[in-house]
Amino acid sequence: MSLHLIVGGAGFIAVTLIERLLADGQEVFATDDLSRGRREYLDRFSGRNGFKFEQIDCNDREKLASFAAACGKIEHVWHLAANSDIPAGVADPQVDLQQTFMTTFNVLLVMKALGIGQLHFASSSAIYGDLGSVKIREDVGPVEPISNYGAMKLASEAQIRAAVEAWLSRANIFRFPNVVGVPATHGVVLDFVRKLREDPSCLRVLGDGTQQKAYLHVHELVDAMLYIQRTCKNRYNVFNIGPEDDGVTVGFIAESVRDMVAPQARIEFGSGSRGWIGDVPRFRYSVDRLAELGWAPRLSSAGAISRAIDEIARQEG
Amino acid sequence: MSLHLIVGGAGFIAVTLIERLLADGQEVFATDDLSRGRREYLDRFSGRNGFKFEQIDCNDREKLASFAAACGKIEHVWHLAANSDIPAGVADPQVDLQQTFMTTFNVLLVMKALGIGQLHFASSSAIYGDLGSVKIREDVGPVEPISNYGAMKLASEAQIRAAVEAWLSRANIFRFPNVVGVPATHGVVLDFVRKLREDPSCLRVLGDGTQQKAYLHVHELVDAMLYIQRTCKNRYNVFNIGPEDDGVTVGFIAESVRDMVAPQARIEFGSGSRGWIGDVPRFRYSVDRLAELGWAPRLSSAGAISRAIDEIARQEG
Repeated sequence: MSLHLIVGGAGFIAVTLIERLLADGQEVFATDDLSRGRREYLDRFSGRNGFKFEQIDCNDREKLASFAAACGKIEHVWHLAANSDIPAGVADPQVDLQQTFMTTFNVLLVMKALGIGQLHFASSSAIYGDLGSVKIREDVGPVEPISNYGAMKLASEAQIRAAVEAWLSRANIFRFPNVVGVPATHGVVLDFVRKLREDPSCLRVLGDGTQQKAYLHVHELVDAMLYIQRTCKNRYNVFNIGPEDDGVTVGFIAESVRDMVAPQARIEFGSGSRGWIGDVPRFRYSVDRLAELGWAPRLSSAGAISRAIDEIARQEG
Repeated sequence: MSLHLIVGGAGFIAVTLIERLLADGQEVFATDDLSRGRREYLDRFSGRNGFKFEQIDCNDREKLASFAAACGKIEHVWHLAANSDIPAGVADPQVDLQQTFMTTFNVLLVMKALGIGQLHFASSSAIYGDLGSVKIREDVGPVEPISNYGAMKLASEAQIRAAVEAWLSRANIFRFPNVVGVPATHGVVLDFVRKLREDPSCLRVLGDGTQQKAYLHVHELVDAMLYIQRTCKNRYNVFNIGPEDDGVTVGFIAESVRDMVAPQARIEFGSGSRGWIGDVPRFRYSVDRLAELGWAPRLSSAGAISRAIDEIARQEG
């Protein structure tokens, strides 16, 4: 049994991670500033052995350090705290500076001060920017993020890499794809479900619907993260995590949500293939490195979307 | 004639850049916090038409913005402000956060507020990390800096790239090699000259002397920067700047300095090929992209070192 600290522990992905770690008999301490995460997501764990939560902004290093020190001998930090609203970060660069980069910077300082050696970091496909139709491997170049979010995730990776050189024992960098599932807080599926609940006659879609992305279900994502954590012993490991297909279009998602939530609705598309500045229109992700390590997802992008629509429609009541 | 703002304008490279811009009839406004730059470097420009300097920490956005606004219609910002002491940044990550990254972040915010569209940025070969014997092209991957300095230069590039996507008209990213010349403030040549002035009988070298790097003379570097600024009209341009050879070893530099400064001195080498954490032991830089644009340096690494030793020995009196 090991002691795990989850920073950003009340968010969408953290909930599934905590569930899995506790089921595995691990001890889990979680912090979150609750600016985006929600305390009620953690209600299901209250009273569970080996779980503890405290509301802490991880940029408050002193508070995070004294909480972590009181937890006992932490072996693993899972750093999931970040801005999750990319357009908000484009409008105001301070958002991603503070929430996406400074969180990493400060978590590293706390780990160094406390002698915690293993970091597992939620990075993003957004670091790659727009590489056109290239199949994106982890070692691709050039890496030119086109959003402040992507820039600050890349900055986080770089700072972690330098820490591995200097003092950190091990770091796993997970480059997340688009992730779907519950509890949903944002994203295209939730957006469409809510729009159709408001107006069941019409679904208006930003962009022309041809934008294509790969999606992974959150259960599979967390399974991959845990697999990498347990399997990969190198000091610095970078993995794309995603399905093996090239993804589905926004049009496909719109139709799938419509079919399940409001079959009579008509769909109105906008124009252009980009939803907002910094959004990457098309996207091909290589997950060969992860497959070579021995892990592959069960669900395709279409399968993940279909399962998520079902779950999110139930979440939205 | 255009108006240029030089941030970090009292540093080693800025002095040569300002000289060249003024000689070309451009108007130049410079700021520097004088933490590393020195006011006396700018004495030669005092009273010159079209030149003005003010001591400003560019992380003080309000002060920088009001100075820049009072300058008139600035067309070009040359951002040269950064930490230049890599080991200091390894010891304390705050150094490169504040001096290497936040300077870029804040300069961008000021440019956006004032509607200044063109940024010319001093990046570094340190962003590449240790790629072994690969000849490093600008689009190489993976990009994994191994020092906080390299990490924060990469973070700066990423933030600039995202700004180009959102609002910045044009950015030139110059990936500097090791640069030599005067006024020298740090670096291996100055270090050896000073050591030999202190003890003309023996030169002690950190590492085994086999560490090999490419060097460019500051006059050539500035010439390349100005050439790119005038020639390359794309919105986002990244260039390695350096000599075409694979560089010279620390041992070669030690011997060259010894021969010029204290011919009788014996040289004592340490062990290991790295001088400090985050230092990259070997290094092969492709400058094909710049050659295709039409610029190549006149001096090899050995030529640049030889000229710099002569200049630095005179500087040190």
